[in-house]
Amino acid sequence: MMDGTSFKLLAKYLPSTYVQQAKDAHNTTNFLFNQLLEKRKWPEEGWIERNIEILLDELASLDSNNFLKNHGVGEREARIASSLVAKRNFHLGHGLGRSGDLTEVQPKAAGSSVLYQLTNDLAKDALRTLGVPDVKACFVAPLATGMSLTLIFLCIRQQQPKARYVIWSRIDQKSCFKSITTAGFEPIIVQPILKGDELVTDTGKIEAIMKQMDPELIACVMTTTSCFAPRACDDVESIAVLCKSHHIAHVVNNAYGVQNTKCMHLIQQASKKGRVDAFVQSTDKNFMVPVGGTIIAGFDKSFVSKISQCYPGRASSSPIVDLFITLLSLGSKEYKSLARERKHLFQLLREGLAKIASRFGQRVLDTPGNSISIGISLPSVKDPKLLTQLGSQLFLRCVSGTRVVSNLESKVINGHEFRSWGAHHSNYPTGYLTAAATIGMTAIDVEQFLQRLTKVMESWSTKTIPMVLPSLANGNDGFTHDVLTSDYLVDQESSVI
Amino acid sequence: MMDGTSFKLLAKYLPSTYVQQAKDAHNTTNFLFNQLLEKRKWPEEGWIERNIEILLDELASLDSNNFLKNHGVGEREARIASSLVAKRNFHLGHGLGRSGDLTEVQPKAAGSSVLYQLTNDLAKDALRTLGVPDVKACFVAPLATGMSLTLIFLCIRQQQPKARYVIWSRIDQKSCFKSITTAGFEPIIVQPILKGDELVTDTGKIEAIMKQMDPELIACVMTTTSCFAPRACDDVESIAVLCKSHHIAHVVNNAYGVQNTKCMHLIQQASKKGRVDAFVQSTDKNFMVPVGGTIIAGFDKSFVSKISQCYPGRASSSPIVDLFITLLSLGSKEYKSLARERKHLFQLLREGLAKIASRFGQRVLDTPGNSISIGISLPSVKDPKLLTQLGSQLFLRCVSGTRVVSNLESKVINGHEFRSWGAHHSNYPTGYLTAAATIGMTAIDVEQFLQRLTKVMESWSTKTIPMVLPSLANGNDGFTHDVLTSDYLVDQESSVI
Amino acid sequence: MMDGTSFKLLAKYLPSTYVQQAKDAHNTTNFLFNQLLEKRKWPEEGWIERNIEILLDELASLDSNNFLKNHGVGEREARIASSLVAKRNFHLGHGLGRSGDLTEVQPKAAGSSVLYQLTNDLAKDALRTLGVPDVKACFVAPLATGMSLTLIFLCIRQQQPKARYVIWSRIDQKSCFKSITTAGFEPIIVQPILKGDELVTDTGKIEAIMKQMDPELIACVMTTTSCFAPRACDDVESIAVLCKSHHIAHVVNNAYGVQNTKCMHLIQQASKKGRVDAFVQSTDKNFMVPVGGTIIAGFDKSFVSKISQCYPGRASSSPIVDLFITLLSLGSKEYKSLARERKHLFQLLREGLAKIASRFGQRVLDTPGNSISIGISLPSVKDPKLLTQLGSQLFLRCVSGTRVVSNLESKVINGHEFRSWGAHHSNYPTGYLTAAATIGMTAIDVEQFLQRLTKVMESWSTKTIPMVLPSLANGNDGFTHDVLTSDYLVDQESSVI
Amino acid sequence: MMDGTSFKLLAKYLPSTYVQQAKDAHNTTNFLFNQLLEKRKWPEEGWIERNIEILLDELASLDSNNFLKNHGVGEREARIASSLVAKRNFHLGHGLGRSGDLTEVQPKAAGSSVLYQLTNDLAKDALRTLGVPDVKACFVAPLATGMSLTLIFLCIRQQQPKARYVIWSRIDQKSCFKSITTAGFEPIIVQPILKGDELVTDTGKIEAIMKQMDPELIACVMTTTSCFAPRACDDVESIAVLCKSHHIAHVVNNAYGVQNTKCMHLIQQASKKGRVDAFVQSTDKNFMVPVGGTIIAGFDKSFVSKISQCYPGRASSSPIVDLFITLLSLGSKEYKSLARERKHLFQLLREGLAKIASRFGQRVLDTPGNSISIGISLPSVKDPKLLTQLGSQLFLRCVSGTRVVSNLESKVINGHEFRSWGAHHSNYPTGYLTAAATIGMTAIDVEQFLQRLTKVMESWSTKTIPMVLPSLANGNDGFTHDVLTSDYLVDQESSVI
Repeated sequence: MMDGTSFKLLAKYLPSTYVQQAKDAHNTTNFLFNQLLEKRKWPEEGWIERNIEILLDELASLDSNNFLKNHGVGEREARIASSLVAKRNFHLGHGLGRSGDLTEVQPKAAGSSVLYQLTNDLAKDALRTLGVPDVKACFVAPLATGMSLTLIFLCIRQQQPKARYVIWSRIDQKSCFKSITTAGFEPIIVQPILKGDELVTDTGKIEAIMKQMDPELIACVMTTTSCFAPRACDDVESIAVLCKSHHIAHVVNNAYGVQNTKCMHLIQQASKKGRVDAFVQSTDKNFMVPVGGTIIAGFDKSFVSKISQCYPGRASSSPIVDLFITLLSLGSKEYKSLARERKHLFQLLREGLAKIASRFGQRVLDTPGNSISIGISLPSVKDPKLLTQLGSQLFLRCVSGTRVVSNLESKVINGHEFRSWGAHHSNYPTGYLTAAATIGMTAIDVEQFLQRLTKVMESWSTKTIPMVLPSLANGNDGFTHDVLTSDYLVDQESSVI
Repeated sequence: MMDGTSFKLLAKYLPSTYVQQAKDAHNTTNFLFNQLLEKRKWPEEGWIERNIEILLDELASLDSNNFLKNHGVGEREARIASSLVAKRNFHLGHGLGRSGDLTEVQPKAAGSSVLYQLTNDLAKDALRTLGVPDVKACFVAPLATGMSLTLIFLCIRQQQPKARYVIWSRIDQKSCFKSITTAGFEPIIVQPILKGDELVTDTGKIEAIMKQMDPELIACVMTTTSCFAPRACDDVESIAVLCKSHHIAHVVNNAYGVQNTKCMHLIQQASKKGRVDAFVQSTDKNFMVPVGGTIIAGFDKSFVSKISQCYPGRASSSPIVDLFITLLSLGSKEYKSLARERKHLFQLLREGLAKIASRFGQRVLDTPGNSISIGISLPSVKDPKLLTQLGSQLFLRCVSGTRVVSNLESKVINGHEFRSWGAHHSNYPTGYLTAAATIGMTAIDVEQFLQRLTKVMESWSTKTIPMVLPSLANGNDGFTHDVLTSDYLVDQESSVI
Repeated sequence: MMDGTSFKLLAKYLPSTYVQQAKDAHNTTNFLFNQLLEKRKWPEEGWIERNIEILLDELASLDSNNFLKNHGVGEREARIASSLVAKRNFHLGHGLGRSGDLTEVQPKAAGSSVLYQLTNDLAKDALRTLGVPDVKACFVAPLATGMSLTLIFLCIRQQQPKARYVIWSRIDQKSCFKSITTAGFEPIIVQPILKGDELVTDTGKIEAIMKQMDPELIACVMTTTSCFAPRACDDVESIAVLCKSHHIAHVVNNAYGVQNTKCMHLIQQASKKGRVDAFVQSTDKNFMVPVGGTIIAGFDKSFVSKISQCYPGRASSSPIVDLFITLLSLGSKEYKSLARERKHLFQLLREGLAKIASRFGQRVLDTPGNSISIGISLPSVKDPKLLTQLGSQLFLRCVSGTRVVSNLESKVINGHEFRSWGAHHSNYPTGYLTAAATIGMTAIDVEQFLQRLTKVMESWSTKTIPMVLPSLANGNDGFTHDVLTSDYLVDQESSVI
Repeated sequence: MMDGTSFKLLAKYLPSTYVQQAKDAHNTTNFLFNQLLEKRKWPEEGWIERNIEILLDELASLDSNNFLKNHGVGEREARIASSLVAKRNFHLGHGLGRSGDLTEVQPKAAGSSVLYQLTNDLAKDALRTLGVPDVKACFVAPLATGMSLTLIFLCIRQQQPKARYVIWSRIDQKSCFKSITTAGFEPIIVQPILKGDELVTDTGKIEAIMKQMDPELIACVMTTTSCFAPRACDDVESIAVLCKSHHIAHVVNNAYGVQNTKCMHLIQQASKKGRVDAFVQSTDKNFMVPVGGTIIAGFDKSFVSKISQCYPGRASSSPIVDLFITLLSLGSKEYKSLARERKHLFQLLREGLAKIASRFGQRVLDTPGNSISIGISLPSVKDPKLLTQLGSQLFLRCVSGTRVVSNLESKVINGHEFRSWGAHHSNYPTGYLTAAATIGMTAIDVEQFLQRLTKVMESWSTKTIPMVLPSLANGNDGFTHDVLTSDYLVDQESSVI
């Protein structure tokens, strides 16, 4: 790194005006770095990659394993055997945290510690900027959503040793459910209720359970914002109010809700009117980094801090580095622009799906409570394998991410049986196909998907459904609730992913 | 990627003999890859980085986010916003696992799935090669040691819902202790007994507890192999025998024991004569990768599989990629050579420390049960801050990893009070300084450490200890058990790290 | 690299449908590569970086220094000491060419040889696509424009040993002039004639010289297309016709003319109606790669081939790799779009400059024959240093690339004296400032430049020119032809760059 | 980049002692950089790659294209279209030099200019350190050896316009010969004389030519140090003395002589006793970087400077970057160690070849004047294709770099006919095979080569030479001077490379 002396020495190489100009340019970057260190805010303008790399290099230089003259005689000295590994990790070897706490400063790794604090600051500012201005604390956990929820539950357990249950507004994502059982709690499953096409939170039932049970036995209620249609975003606000009045903790799975102002606004409102102890958001789904991190946030600094202290020991800093780079690289301006684009593509997707659906005698499911995922109804078929084929054909045509849902088999997870696993409901009246518009999507993605879906539907409907289909718009009775074979399930999962 | 057609086309560019030669070279690399895919063994000869990168590129090409024509309409499509992030992750975005299981194949990420299976295969072969030939299954967890232990405990809880306690042979590493409490268990702390200078497992007491308690209430016993002197490696074998006869699970924290044939042999023997349900080893400490992974291994395939199934959801693949690269890059030959070098440096370190100790009227603590870490006694001082200064001075001279341990204050962790936290024992008779010889260390590290220690000791002993010191070799009574001030504790921790 | 066997082996890791999908994806990339090898055309759609890197890796694998089992006992085995150097060169070490010829296949470096052939093919296709469809041959020389011209002159010398002169339509770029003298020829300097504001080729004088001299003594005529205003693109067509009828070679310096359809069209027309032996274009200025390469092209395969054979020995492949990557990365579609954008920005720049000029009583110089660079007149000042300051102030405000030209001092280069060096003419009637719109420029560049220029002009005109300026639009007489001091020259050069 | 302010800000993130420690570490790197800038010497200890990369990043930051706020309106703004290209060039886009001079400072590229000066300083120090302490000036030319020689000849031509000839001590490397003709000179070819097995400089003939001709007509004498056996290093010292007394310039091709103390010492001695105007060394062959650069050095600052000024325009900085990285990465200590290893391997190679030769009734050619390359005689065969096969078989067994030389065909290069091209002599008495020990070679290379050669010789001699061979040790008469078919030539060249 160059310093004042360096620039003096450069005068032997360059005319003084060039030295001055070079120094000015150097100072511009310094200023950028110092502003970040001082303000601890998500910059509006994204940084160029070069500057991000230089900052990471600088921070890594503060870790003892990168001191030129350091000699280690401990058991963990962040020696890195492969230079390929060293480079891809920017020579950061000490990971996060100390045995005491994930967010504690590491004596051997000052640079890594600063990096982590900065990332947490940027993440907090991002949540505030994107719709939850009242958030008080957060940290980036090097865990995906499921394990992050488990960590929160384990923290609640330490504070509330008698607790045995988590009240759970059913959402058919396995990791979500398993986060409860892995933490050693019993789930109390509250199925959403069918309102038109939409599946909405059964607040009545949740309230009834709260009234009925000893609150000390209930660890918390877990709600979910972002989800597959036709399930709507949970009524987080009402649940928050109930939790507050019944003195029950409330954990919100905001998996991919950061990209959606509605989800964010809901959490902000819920925290004002009721109780939200923690909300969790995936870094990969919201910030386009590889899978492996979440932001665990809350409105009570000490509770968030307890969660991080609950983490036993150190952890990989890789998800933190990815998020740090990405937040700096995008800046809030570019992120907001991508979020607006997503919203726009959601409309395009809905319109395109509506056209396709109507052409094949189907319709878009009416789910105003879900502004990310959309479903279209599918015709009733004799052999449920036919539905499976639809998903498979799309997958083989390089469309990933659609789900084809029919009346599925029951599934037993950790001793709990779910009827029609995958549908969020044991008796949804129609088969359907879903697609989602998420951040980072492009117009070409939508266009190509619609084109390929049309082709697949054409060949599929001609070959497999020669009869005229009963209109689903008028009722759901036309749909036969066949139990699918296990063969289907395998394939269906492969198309669901 | 080039195929047969490519080589035919190359004939327009090159004389046929060169095409043939190029094809042969191409085949050599193909053969290397195929051999790995077929044998699933840790290669003896390390691979050059280029080939590792090419293989990673090839595997990444099998993930849907890297398909040229893929269009995603799901909520998780592994879009990567920053090209810097994409590159450092080799364009692998889907992480590990499916919601069901960490080791399950991901439909969208065939390449990542193969990568993970391969890494687990290599890791298993590495454990076998390095001293535990009977290991039956393992997986690389993207978690550091503490959280990995918690995961195992949570898995035991699911199988043994009544369990409440973990019997723990005390070792003063916070994450180790917290792994129990975070999992929601109560630790039953069994302090090691003092035998000469050494702290050894109190098997008698552990047996007594087993006899006394309802085995259903005991989740498991946790023992530790690698540790700071003067604590010895636990008597894993005897505990394994006791566990077997009392039908109690046994979890071994083999944190940095892979590099040490003694630790590995002990686990192998214990598994033969008694019961070892799972043993955990850090990837960073044993394989010189950044912090963030462990290998969780065992002798019962189905139990290891249950642990991985207990993990709720996906996880970062970064620690897996680091280990994969490193195992391939080193090969078993180079690893074994580094392990031999470590053993040799341990002797040098001991000899050097003995000389220094004797020069200052001290001695090397006699701890035959610890072949990684060594301690030398320190003189009794009136003001314990003096001891602190020793550690600080070393740290400021760029020696990292030494620990200076005196009669420390009590510490309360999760409601449990530990007398003399840091010493593994509430009443160790002398202050001491430890250093360790771990894999990747070089002769220069040892030499520089000894030089700097000598200098620090010289200045420190002249300035601070003008009196003649009582010989510690003849007994420990010369040492005053002062309670240290909190100031010390801060500094001491900074030198302990 | 994976092959058929690899995919068979993958069946042990993955369900067969995933293997099939992965294989399909693999084949898509294979197909891309094979198409390139077969068609040898500049792809319309740009490639993603990953695929470019993979192809470079594949090609490097065909070079003997990357054969796993190769052992070299020659004097040049492309050993690369630094892994940093190896990586940045994609492990390509053998450079280009053989001692015989730059474009000959290297036995030890089949991959490098293919890479070079491919790059030459892509370059040829690029020239054809961008306006010179009749080009017959070209090669990318790892030399910048000046040295490339020298190489061509040296080749002509070998064929025409009596030749002593190069007729040169004056353009004030030193390297251009030196390319003649370095090759050992005498330049016959033909100053352009002033036509309105514009400096145009003095074809009459050139014809007169041709008639007057023994053609055997003339190596060639050198014309230039792209240049700084107010010099226009040379009348390449007329010169080509003259060259043809007088049997004199014609070399065109098309430095940054590829980005400009006019320059390209002119060359194409010239080759049809007259004679163009070779034309040279910079890779950095036209294709946005680092300085160091040109495309040397022509309409007679054997002459172009002779130039490449004239190059004695090997050369760096770095400029070739940069161009190869860039051509593939952009694709012709993106390049054409950038070229259109450039054209558009040229209009914006002209309009913006016109506004600024009129505000300060100046005007845009009328140079219809230059569609890249634009000049605005500057007021006549007593002290020419004032003009210098204008350039300096822009440079210090981070505007690079402007030139401020006044009545400059004479300059002697290789024994030739040039009056008003920098102005292409010994007596241009006014001082002026130029700016250019070149490929890769953005709207922000134009906008910021215009803003900063306005500010600089404001402060400059207020402070330095209190008097009302004579209108330059009505004539050039208002301008005092002061000889500038040498001080000015230093500064002026620093602003000219 | 971090500065004093940054460290003050870090106090909000870290305890003050860690900040201090981090600052100290930062200063250590600063100090390293400043020492380099100040001393301009080749460091003894190599730098770690990280620090080299950081320094390159810092230097690149001083180039205008990397200024955050720069807006360019010139025709060459070092815009880089591909981020892959930008990264591999460390964002250095402006290349070397200005139109005036290769070594001049570029206003837009202060960092690149410093980098080039530093590299030239390091190169000079390297030449001094490695045996030519009296060298006065040098620059790294981004040209390989052949073109660098041409550049020197072109420079001589400018100073000595009447010169027409270069006296050339024949060495059969095409680029060496072509460097003369491309520069427009006539070579006067002086064949070496056969002295025992060795081919040595015919100083007598050279002196005779000098005496006979007008010195004004002679551009220079070109001698060569490093070459293939059985040609010896030229008698550079005697030629230097002759050149001095006859006032004729002397250019030494020291292609791969830097690695060899004998070659270096010879040049040093020659410069003391006689005249050496310039000597040229390849960067790839001596410093293990990719092909593309030379160090052009001399004992007269102004002459070296004239050569660099002769270069018309800019050039690629890539070969400079490669050399800069490599010199810093190795340090002089590691380089000298590699050079010693080379010397040792030369002995091993000679011994191994002697054994093999004797086993097959052949012998090592006695060439004491060549300490890099070694030849062994080959038996006389009826069909010269048999010799070819020997080379081919080695090449197909992945041995690169051997040359099999027999009585070759004549070859016409640029109008000059060479009898037995490849043998440095028109009538060498025996066929032979050569191998060389050059820097970077490893013991495994030697071992594998000897093994493979043995195998090839075994199969080759059994199958192809059933008769008992006449002993070549006693004379050369046994060898039939067959003219080889052109088929052979192709293959032979492919094995010669």
